[in-house]
Amino acid sequence: MNQIRNGWFSELSELWPGQCLSLKVKEVLYNEKSEYQDVLVFESTNNGTVLVLDGIIQCTQKDEFSYQEMITFLPLCSHPKPEKVLIVGGGDGGVAREVNKHPLVKEFVQVEIDEKVITASKKHLPFMSKGFSSSKLTLKVCDGFEYMKKHKNEFDVIITDSSDPIGPAVNLFTESYFRLLKEALKPNGIICSQSGTVWTDLDHVKQTLDNCRKHFKSVKYAGSSVPSYPNGQIGYLVASLEENVDLTKPKFKFTGSQIEELELRYYNEDVHAASFVLPNFVRKELFK
Amino acid sequence: MNQIRNGWFSELSELWPGQCLSLKVKEVLYNEKSEYQDVLVFESTNNGTVLVLDGIIQCTQKDEFSYQEMITFLPLCSHPKPEKVLIVGGGDGGVAREVNKHPLVKEFVQVEIDEKVITASKKHLPFMSKGFSSSKLTLKVCDGFEYMKKHKNEFDVIITDSSDPIGPAVNLFTESYFRLLKEALKPNGIICSQSGTVWTDLDHVKQTLDNCRKHFKSVKYAGSSVPSYPNGQIGYLVASLEENVDLTKPKFKFTGSQIEELELRYYNEDVHAASFVLPNFVRKELFK
Repeated sequence: MNQIRNGWFSELSELWPGQCLSLKVKEVLYNEKSEYQDVLVFESTNNGTVLVLDGIIQCTQKDEFSYQEMITFLPLCSHPKPEKVLIVGGGDGGVAREVNKHPLVKEFVQVEIDEKVITASKKHLPFMSKGFSSSKLTLKVCDGFEYMKKHKNEFDVIITDSSDPIGPAVNLFTESYFRLLKEALKPNGIICSQSGTVWTDLDHVKQTLDNCRKHFKSVKYAGSSVPSYPNGQIGYLVASLEENVDLTKPKFKFTGSQIEELELRYYNEDVHAASFVLPNFVRKELFK
Repeated sequence: MNQIRNGWFSELSELWPGQCLSLKVKEVLYNEKSEYQDVLVFESTNNGTVLVLDGIIQCTQKDEFSYQEMITFLPLCSHPKPEKVLIVGGGDGGVAREVNKHPLVKEFVQVEIDEKVITASKKHLPFMSKGFSSSKLTLKVCDGFEYMKKHKNEFDVIITDSSDPIGPAVNLFTESYFRLLKEALKPNGIICSQSGTVWTDLDHVKQTLDNCRKHFKSVKYAGSSVPSYPNGQIGYLVASLEENVDLTKPKFKFTGSQIEELELRYYNEDVHAASFVLPNFVRKELFK
C-alpha cells in the first residue's frame, strides 16, 4: 500500500486505470495500518504535507483549501439558517476548520470512524486539524451510519467528506445512505457529499445522483479544481429535501472583508454559482 | 526526451517540479526529432491517442475537446463579427477543427512552425487533424512572428495555441509578441492565448497578463478543466484592443441544436461566463 519508489509516491488505483499522479517525497512522517485502512503521511518536495489513505491521496497542503471550502460552503451558504451541522468523515479536520468559520453555525458534530486518521492529522497536519479545536464542535469516533440511525430530524446541513467509493467509504454513495441522511435532517435540510470526478467514471457520478434523487427533491452537481485529485477535478453532490430550491445561488454571502479575515482562498459567491455550470458532456449525462 | 519506462509515459518537467502525471502506453505510433523538438505520438491504454512535444503532453484523445473548444470559442464568441481568424501554432489541427464550426467565420489562416507536428497529426490524430480539411483554411508552415510582421491590421481574432513557455514557444508570452498581435489585428480585434495553470506558476500567469496589458485595453483570464494538463487546469488569456469590453458575456450564442450538430462537448454560453470566475487566491493576484 505504501507506494513509494525511488523517492516518488505514485497513486495507482483501479478507479482510474492507465493514469497515475506521482508526488516527490521529502520525508515519510507517519505510516500505520489502522483497523480500517493504511494511513500514510509524508512531506512532499513541492506540495507540502500529504495525507494518503489506502494508497489514495486525501489532501495536500498546497491545494486542500479548494476542496475543504467548497464541500463546506456550497451547502452552508445554500441554507437559510445552518445552525446545527453534522460532518461524516473528514478525519483530517479540514471541513471542521471551515464549518467553524461560518457565522450562522451554532454547533456541529463530527463522526469519523478511524481514530488513527485523527491522531495522524493532529500530529502532522496542524493546518487542517486546527478545526478540531473549535468550541462549537463535538467530535465522535464512530460509524456515521450508526450515529445517524440514532439521530433523527436533528441537523440543518450534513456534509459527507468521504474517501473514494472503494474500501471503508463504499457505502456512502448508496441509496440507503441517502435515506439515512434524509432522516437525520430537519425538513428543509441540505446535504453535500464528495462525489467523484466526471472525467473517469461519469456513470458512477450519475448513479450516485440517481440514488440521491430517490430521497431528495432538488439535486445538483458542482465541481472544483483540485490538482492532487484524479484528473484535477472533484465533484460535490448538493441536495435539498425541499422542491425547487435553487442551490446554485447562495443565500448567505461572505463580504470581501470576511473573505480576508476568514482566509477563504477559493470560495466566494461567484465561485459558488459558477461551480454548478457544467460542460455539455456532463450536463447531458447527469441532467437529461 | 522519450520518457517511457516500464510501459508508462511520465511527464517530468522543471515547469512543475515534484509532481508528475503518467499515462500507460499501449503502443508508440510515431517518434521523430524535428528541427524544433521531439515529436512523440503514442496510443495509451485509457486516454486514446496522445501527442507529446519535448516530453510534454499536448493533447489526449480523451479530453482534448475541453481545450480546443475553449481556446477557440472564448474569443470567437466574444467578437461581434469574427470573419477572418489567425491561428498561431496548433499543429495538431484541433483549433482549426473548432474555428471551422463557427458560423460567422469566412476564412482563417494557420501558421505552424513545425511541419512534422502536422504530418504526425495527419497520420495519427485524424480526429483533430480533420480541421485541416476546411475549405476556409489557408495553412502555412512558417514562424508566426515573421508572418505577423507582414500582415498588419488584417484579423478579427488571433488564437495562439502554443506549447508551454519553454523551448520553441517561449517568445509567445512576451510583451513584443503582444505588440505583434495588436498590429496584426483590426481595431476591435480579440486574442486568446494558452496561458498556463494558476496552480504551479501564478507569477508567470501574472507576468503574461501584465505583458498583454501594455498593448490591450481589456484583459481577462479564464480557466477550464483538462485532466491531462499539469494540475488538470489550463488557463486562457482573452483580450480586446477596445476599452471596457465585457469578454465574459458571449455576443454569439450557440443554440442547443447547434451544440448537438457541431458536436460541442464542453463549450456553451454558461461555461463561457463561468470560466472567467476565479478563486480568491487567483483573483487577488491577477486583478488586484
